[in-house]
Amino acid sequence: MNFHTRKWVKPEDLNPNGTLFGGSLLKWIDEEAAIYAIVQLGSQSVVTKLISEINFVSSARQGDIIELGITATEFGRTSLTMRCEVRNKITRKSILTIDKMVFVNMGENGTPVAHGKTEITYIKDQL
Amino acid sequence: MNFHTRKWVKPEDLNPNGTLFGGSLLKWIDEEAAIYAIVQLGSQSVVTKLISEINFVSSARQGDIIELGITATEFGRTSLTMRCEVRNKITRKSILTIDKMVFVNMGENGTPVAHGKTEITYIKDQL
Amino acid sequence: MNFHTRKWVKPEDLNPNGTLFGGSLLKWIDEEAAIYAIVQLGSQSVVTKLISEINFVSSARQGDIIELGITATEFGRTSLTMRCEVRNKITRKSILTIDKMVFVNMGENGTPVAHGKTEITYIKDQL
Amino acid sequence: MNFHTRKWVKPEDLNPNGTLFGGSLLKWIDEEAAIYAIVQLGSQSVVTKLISEINFVSSARQGDIIELGITATEFGRTSLTMRCEVRNKITRKSILTIDKMVFVNMGENGTPVAHGKTEITYIKDQL
Amino acid sequence: MNFHTRKWVKPEDLNPNGTLFGGSLLKWIDEEAAIYAIVQLGSQSVVTKLISEINFVSSARQGDIIELGITATEFGRTSLTMRCEVRNKITRKSILTIDKMVFVNMGENGTPVAHGKTEITYIKDQL
Amino acid sequence: MNFHTRKWVKPEDLNPNGTLFGGSLLKWIDEEAAIYAIVQLGSQSVVTKLISEINFVSSARQGDIIELGITATEFGRTSLTMRCEVRNKITRKSILTIDKMVFVNMGENGTPVAHGKTEITYIKDQL
Repeated sequence: MNFHTRKWVKPEDLNPNGTLFGGSLLKWIDEEAAIYAIVQLGSQSVVTKLISEINFVSSARQGDIIELGITATEFGRTSLTMRCEVRNKITRKSILTIDKMVFVNMGENGTPVAHGKTEITYIKDQL
Repeated sequence: MNFHTRKWVKPEDLNPNGTLFGGSLLKWIDEEAAIYAIVQLGSQSVVTKLISEINFVSSARQGDIIELGITATEFGRTSLTMRCEVRNKITRKSILTIDKMVFVNMGENGTPVAHGKTEITYIKDQL
Repeated sequence: MNFHTRKWVKPEDLNPNGTLFGGSLLKWIDEEAAIYAIVQLGSQSVVTKLISEINFVSSARQGDIIELGITATEFGRTSLTMRCEVRNKITRKSILTIDKMVFVNMGENGTPVAHGKTEITYIKDQL
Repeated sequence: MNFHTRKWVKPEDLNPNGTLFGGSLLKWIDEEAAIYAIVQLGSQSVVTKLISEINFVSSARQGDIIELGITATEFGRTSLTMRCEVRNKITRKSILTIDKMVFVNMGENGTPVAHGKTEITYIKDQL
Repeated sequence: MNFHTRKWVKPEDLNPNGTLFGGSLLKWIDEEAAIYAIVQLGSQSVVTKLISEINFVSSARQGDIIELGITATEFGRTSLTMRCEVRNKITRKSILTIDKMVFVNMGENGTPVAHGKTEITYIKDQL
Repeated sequence: MNFHTRKWVKPEDLNPNGTLFGGSLLKWIDEEAAIYAIVQLGSQSVVTKLISEINFVSSARQGDIIELGITATEFGRTSLTMRCEVRNKITRKSILTIDKMVFVNMGENGTPVAHGKTEITYIKDQL
């Protein structure tokens, strides 16, 4: 799994207890997964369909740098399934893992449409 | 299940496809669950521990009003398990459901601590 | 008056003195009143027309849970007048009250239009 | 009245009807009044105490530039009363006016404390 | 140079070290320059083209009030060049200066178009 | 240069002309550079000192995915100089480049302090 997007935990991201607000983290993850799906499927019309169990293993504190990793695990006809891990960039300690994030490719009429992809595209060795 | 917090879907909450951004919705849910847990456990030191499978049944559009419902389903020694549903306030159409959101009561040293509660507290018939 | 939407006071909501920023609170109230008006008038084209004197009785601190209560007090031909109270969810201490928030139902040409409602609609006993 | 702070109405400031969200405008006004009070009273510990009737005369649209004007109208022993107007920077059309915004100077123990000022201070002819 | 827009440094604007986040400051400056250009050029279709070296002379802390000053320095055929300074409103200490911020007036087809202005317009002695 | 953090251009990131707001982009860049500096210098106390000329080559639109690339170009005694490029993730078209972003390592007393690093650290081949 490659880790791309990083976040610097700032005061605006904290819950009142002074640790990273879980909701902010979930928002970051959903955006990163959408980006990954858009790049892989070559389509901007993707929507979150299902997120499997999310296990919050550890937290993050103000000033921590975290990084988000996503990898495709299954190409359906209209969907893409990804695995996700978030970890502390410096200590490598895992913050949470999600086994399945399923995004669906939507057609113009608002129903799922085949995306035609069957495997991970490596864009110039970089995804 | 009672529904309390409502949101008016504004431009700032949309994804580039013009529907409610899933990440924004997840952030709202996490805050609502934290509030419910704090009220029930009588403790401000609660953290998100686990969120079970999230099934996005339908979406929401700009101008829609959605409401968030949470109810406690199990009181552990140091944890509280809740069920969550988000629906369109006007049409009552379900947007997503989450069977289990587990929050844990944390002590000052950062480890789980017993909360002493065993059932839902109704604050003046209102929760 | 029923209290619905709740907020958890987070660092992003604070003024530099460490208490809830009044402007953030006003933003929350305006959204809650808009939602109430939309539900009651069955129209999404409502705009804030007038807010009567706002008296800040007490403040809120990081970690506090506050709840917003709105109730309709008068149905005009094109307008709806509401009363608003914000209080601390746990202590029930009042934070502020507003006697009159007037919203107007707008037609497509940008002028007020009759909404046809004369009393509070209780949506399945829940508003 | 001098007008200082300006805002460019961006998509993030809109309500779902596509006009400036009233709540965003109220947030901007409260910050501007706080700034004015801090500068005049020479104290950072000021809090919003009362806002008189707010009359929304006209709205603003995406891309509009608005400007906020504040002027002190009365110096109390522990308070400062200000008048506020918001208008379209280009057309000069009034958006709203507020006759009284009362801020109070707070002492360290959380109670009002005398500020010792009796008239407007012009900082190098610029306030 | 006249200073108009002011900001009150709030927790949401801080980096994890507790000082004003440089990125937030840059965002404020870009908006202020856009506003200045729109007013001067009488056109809403302006885009940032170039920002010369930015020298961060000093920082700002929570609770500080800062003010942004912009002045036009050169009118090109399709562009406007401005100079910018940000300083602490109370102490007058400079926070940063930017010698050149170049904005371009865009036509409907997305290419630069002549704006026809050659000198600063003083709107009722106020810009 | 490696590209890490990606952004999905959402309505909240747009200027009123419907393209990516330059200020939002500058905020993202400053955070990414801070993260890079923190990881390279092994210190969380870094501040933005200087940003050289920023040339906005092209813009981005709603729904675009952009990626930020940073690389260290010079290690001073207390500073780190980086080069930055932002481009469209799909088309590879450059959006802007910055030749020099200088961050300084700060000691506890608020003055620059030596960081002891002289070359890029590759954390498990991944930075």
